[in-house]
Amino acid sequence: MTYARAGVDIDKVSRAHRAIARKLERTFRTRRGKIGRPIFPIGHYAGLVDIGHDKVLSLHTDNVGTKMIIAHMMRKFDTVGIDCVAMCANDLICTGSEPVAFLDHISLASPDHTIVGQIADGIAKGAEEAGMAVVGGETAITPDLLQGQVGDLIGMAIGICSRRELVLGDKVRRGDTLVGVASSGIHSNGLTLARKVLLKTHRLGERVPGLGRTLGQELLEPTRIYVKPVLELLRKSEVHGLAHITGGAFSKLDRIVSQAKLGATLEELPPLPEIFRLIQKTGHVSEPEMYRTFNMGVGLIAVCPDSEADRAIRIFGRHGQKAFRLGRVIERNGIRVKGTLVS
Amino acid sequence: MTYARAGVDIDKVSRAHRAIARKLERTFRTRRGKIGRPIFPIGHYAGLVDIGHDKVLSLHTDNVGTKMIIAHMMRKFDTVGIDCVAMCANDLICTGSEPVAFLDHISLASPDHTIVGQIADGIAKGAEEAGMAVVGGETAITPDLLQGQVGDLIGMAIGICSRRELVLGDKVRRGDTLVGVASSGIHSNGLTLARKVLLKTHRLGERVPGLGRTLGQELLEPTRIYVKPVLELLRKSEVHGLAHITGGAFSKLDRIVSQAKLGATLEELPPLPEIFRLIQKTGHVSEPEMYRTFNMGVGLIAVCPDSEADRAIRIFGRHGQKAFRLGRVIERNGIRVKGTLVS
Repeated sequence: MTYARAGVDIDKVSRAHRAIARKLERTFRTRRGKIGRPIFPIGHYAGLVDIGHDKVLSLHTDNVGTKMIIAHMMRKFDTVGIDCVAMCANDLICTGSEPVAFLDHISLASPDHTIVGQIADGIAKGAEEAGMAVVGGETAITPDLLQGQVGDLIGMAIGICSRRELVLGDKVRRGDTLVGVASSGIHSNGLTLARKVLLKTHRLGERVPGLGRTLGQELLEPTRIYVKPVLELLRKSEVHGLAHITGGAFSKLDRIVSQAKLGATLEELPPLPEIFRLIQKTGHVSEPEMYRTFNMGVGLIAVCPDSEADRAIRIFGRHGQKAFRLGRVIERNGIRVKGTLVS
Repeated sequence: MTYARAGVDIDKVSRAHRAIARKLERTFRTRRGKIGRPIFPIGHYAGLVDIGHDKVLSLHTDNVGTKMIIAHMMRKFDTVGIDCVAMCANDLICTGSEPVAFLDHISLASPDHTIVGQIADGIAKGAEEAGMAVVGGETAITPDLLQGQVGDLIGMAIGICSRRELVLGDKVRRGDTLVGVASSGIHSNGLTLARKVLLKTHRLGERVPGLGRTLGQELLEPTRIYVKPVLELLRKSEVHGLAHITGGAFSKLDRIVSQAKLGATLEELPPLPEIFRLIQKTGHVSEPEMYRTFNMGVGLIAVCPDSEADRAIRIFGRHGQKAFRLGRVIERNGIRVKGTLVS
């Protein structure tokens, strides 16, 4: 099984992204000489807009994806809002920005009070954890666009950074250490593949040995929010790059290290969480495909000078987040996980 | 026929909005004492965030809705991007803000280059008209969430305003004049009702007498963008309130005038565009329902002192936009169009 066969071809998606970016970048000219000049290029973790007074806004939008289908099947919508905030906030911090404000966009086939209320509870919880204010949003009722009653959940977030303190990956150096931070499970990526593989042989309500809970509970575990430790890390230590491991998984690191025309090798990964072992075994998914699709237990990677790695690990630890040395930045291009080229 | 029977119950949607707002406002506390304090309350045209230096960010998200279905049926996706930008930018200017940056979120069942390219062309065109830079976005491939191949298109926009120059409606006075600005057609609201009514008896490729073009072309006419004349109006004249006439149509005015505990009466409307006459006649839609669902030829309303109305009309005229006196602000609560209570 591959992610492409499950319906999501990452290469095709990347090509589509690049084609859009080229068309949209010409709009950057509209702000020439005005407040709110974009900082090139499109394609980092967030759009960056210079608003003067040494301040840059970071803008990002993301969605929960087909995790909504699991929520719908479980009739449990109180955690997807946390995922939605996490997907946006964790991307913003990868530019060195402090998340500030959030908007939600809920699409539903009908205005269901219970679902909307549960989603809003999760959004509020996630926003509080990320230190963001939810200043608006939209609930769109579009029965004819959506498949059945599932709905879609999209978030948009704004962060602020001092221009001097932006983390763009250009400071990454050969020999830098990759510090990985534990994920809380599958987070919000690869759910399409996970569902197609697992729901052939398991039910969501089934207690699966090794998970210690039902499959549905495991899949709905909310995405970890890394905002607080990362903001502390940025204040107290030296960080050359930050990668949120989401769609494309470890290939996301390439975005960071390729800025400095370098590559990375990951030699030691944390023990593989049971959910990924289950997906790999049940779906006969290849190793490279797993590393390109799932976070494999690592939700965030900080690239820092080797001398700062222990301090970084301690900071995450103080916030209750397990962090570990994964590998290092090397001369040779591409991202290799245990010798396998994933990007 | 009513909008509720077509699947969209505005009252239910409003109740859901209020329930969410209450839950989300508690997150405002997360910014206490920090940069990026939200300005109460949620529920105006945009979320407002104070970022210091007398600057306020306006944040808004909106979607094109089921206009995407018309685009899909016509296999023509080069205008919906303009609608998406218009829906966001026209809302931002209603707070007195200058639109600055935009993010798009495209959901598709499969990564179709042609569709994505056409959507991006429209977004770029709209953003240039609105003076915004498109600094990022997301193309989410979620085949299992979407009905068929239609897709969904959501925008998010940021504007900036000087705190002193925010337009919130609190300056609206009894006797103020309502200046309406012509819409370009149905814009991006009420399409669910329009489709259900019109596609029973007409085909999209059919040339309908009075429209001067096919029904599909008429329905895909992009939403007018009011940014340039409104920014000029804000600079050169006195504006007490601005209402973008979208979902809920003329009831949207209530949001503005009720801030000052007032109402409004609209006595003279521009000649009804043929598309609305066609929907009303074909669907046997009542007058109040029409005024609550469709813009009826008026895409934006500026509330200004009567002495400024002619100047406002001239400014819109110089930008090629027809504007006219619609009515005035009165003591009695509620919004009345030609004597009919619509809100």
